[in-house]
Amino acid sequence: MQGVLDIPAELESLQGMVADAFPRVIEVFEQQLVSDLPPVDEMCRYIERYRGKMLRPTLVLLCGIAANERHESLIQLGSTDSICTHAHIICGAVSEMVHMATLVHDDVLDEAEIRRRGQTLNMLHGNESSVILGDYLIASAYELCSSLDSPVPSRIVGNASAVMCTGELLQLHHRDNHSLDEATYLEILDRKTAALIGAACELGAICTLGFDQRDHPIAQSLLAYGKSLGVAFQIQDDVLDLMGSEEQVGKSVGKDLEKGKLTYPLIHHLAHADERQTLRSLELVRKASQQDRSGVPELIEAISSTGSIEATQSLASSYVERAKGALLELPVSHGRSMLELIADAVIRRSY
Amino acid sequence: MQGVLDIPAELESLQGMVADAFPRVIEVFEQQLVSDLPPVDEMCRYIERYRGKMLRPTLVLLCGIAANERHESLIQLGSTDSICTHAHIICGAVSEMVHMATLVHDDVLDEAEIRRRGQTLNMLHGNESSVILGDYLIASAYELCSSLDSPVPSRIVGNASAVMCTGELLQLHHRDNHSLDEATYLEILDRKTAALIGAACELGAICTLGFDQRDHPIAQSLLAYGKSLGVAFQIQDDVLDLMGSEEQVGKSVGKDLEKGKLTYPLIHHLAHADERQTLRSLELVRKASQQDRSGVPELIEAISSTGSIEATQSLASSYVERAKGALLELPVSHGRSMLELIADAVIRRSY
Repeated sequence: MQGVLDIPAELESLQGMVADAFPRVIEVFEQQLVSDLPPVDEMCRYIERYRGKMLRPTLVLLCGIAANERHESLIQLGSTDSICTHAHIICGAVSEMVHMATLVHDDVLDEAEIRRRGQTLNMLHGNESSVILGDYLIASAYELCSSLDSPVPSRIVGNASAVMCTGELLQLHHRDNHSLDEATYLEILDRKTAALIGAACELGAICTLGFDQRDHPIAQSLLAYGKSLGVAFQIQDDVLDLMGSEEQVGKSVGKDLEKGKLTYPLIHHLAHADERQTLRSLELVRKASQQDRSGVPELIEAISSTGSIEATQSLASSYVERAKGALLELPVSHGRSMLELIADAVIRRSY
Repeated sequence: MQGVLDIPAELESLQGMVADAFPRVIEVFEQQLVSDLPPVDEMCRYIERYRGKMLRPTLVLLCGIAANERHESLIQLGSTDSICTHAHIICGAVSEMVHMATLVHDDVLDEAEIRRRGQTLNMLHGNESSVILGDYLIASAYELCSSLDSPVPSRIVGNASAVMCTGELLQLHHRDNHSLDEATYLEILDRKTAALIGAACELGAICTLGFDQRDHPIAQSLLAYGKSLGVAFQIQDDVLDLMGSEEQVGKSVGKDLEKGKLTYPLIHHLAHADERQTLRSLELVRKASQQDRSGVPELIEAISSTGSIEATQSLASSYVERAKGALLELPVSHGRSMLELIADAVIRRSY
């Protein structure tokens, strides 16, 4: 998330510490995926390019820092290893690996062609290899996570992954459901995106507080922060899929319409347009789901005309505020300030 | 495996104990997959029919018993709960759930239509739901496994799952490789099948011996037993896919030829046929991989003519002997005898 953050001077040393920890996360990540089989190794090296914003590892590290009441004095002392511990590094790598597994499978399901400005693995190696490589990433993430002394992180990661899948299944169940309501949309987001982002925050917290401290108010607050942040993040992702260009976003866009997934701008629009407009918009939605994108500009204009873009932005903002509200349980600190900045950035990003 | 076993009288009480533990395994399995989302719940209920021989839970339980030096006196005392503990039950359910996840994904990759005499999930709900449901099963298995007090079982399951995926990827890499050799074939089997069956045996052992006892000679022997058993099991599976009928085996057959996967009977045949026959057989193999099964009877006859069926049976038998050899490290017991019977049954089965 570094690119979209405007870091004030007083947070620079904290940012430096996170930046210093990143190579360790990446090293653990790559080490875990080394294979003695050249074709497996080659695919793993290829998908390393999928690593983008590294939001989840960033959150593991920052929540670990924010949960550490002594972090400011420790940073002054330069003893950053006692803040970003081995456990934080492992959990950072695990959260990114689980996320990457979902990207690989999502690209198969979405028949996506572009990811991080390159060809998707399914385009390059076919759906079969991609399905199995996704499985390999998930399995490797669990193996890595269970190298920790306690089964608690594995429990968190296993549960978040299962919940993510139920979100995807719920979304699939509502494919082409043109009367999808806001509550179900938010339920899908809660599960498919917010669960893992929440888990990353919780993992960061308990790596600091102790693996038996899931009930600690700070761990609970950071979990709540992550869950709200995750919803805001996904709303923004949905806006980018609808309105963004492939060049700007760096991956295939327009996939939601193509795959019959209604997202908030459209849900709001259909609920607020008059009858004639609703019929016309549904016609354009159907057209887009039949791979004909020629009506999309008209559809976006229609969505704008009902104030649905602003309504979406305001919904995303409300989740950002909720995320920041959850942080109020934490003592004021540089770590907390950085988490607030990230919350704001999540809905400002254009990629 | 009950159906193919001919249980001698002295093992009946042991068999009864395993049979008594099975409903507990199934209960844990089903409980873990209960979902508050009706479409998810419905699919989970559907795939429960995939539960067949329950080989892996059987091995967890039996290896747990065989590793328990006091098991015979405990059975006499009727205190079977102290043999098949909560941990054994959990690991039994986990091993079956991981296996089931691979069945669901395999059916997608194989475009299989029939499984356990019913429609596959991919035929019923499409590939997308099946990919995600497979992910859900894997994630649920990890979540369940990490409910144990120690991360060691999760480590074993995570590692075995990752190795399984590398086996699948290696197999895919060698698709349509008509000069696939025996060593690579066995490497694929070691990874894609033997790793999880070995893990089931190891899990059973350490649930009895203690989670820190992976190095215990009994745990090591049971792991070795499971790995050899797994190879024998897969060789037999490959024979059934080539020679069996859908009606007898209960699932789609002929998939290996269709998907360009060379298995041992064919590898042996191509290595032993004369030049003219080799060319003809390769022609028939290519035809089968283009969905034209009309040449398969001729191919099977050719395979038989080079003694390749007997060679395959003898290869499978050598792995069964190796599996039984690994058991010699264990004290003589009813548990050990039952594991020997299972090893013999694995290559006698016709489904």
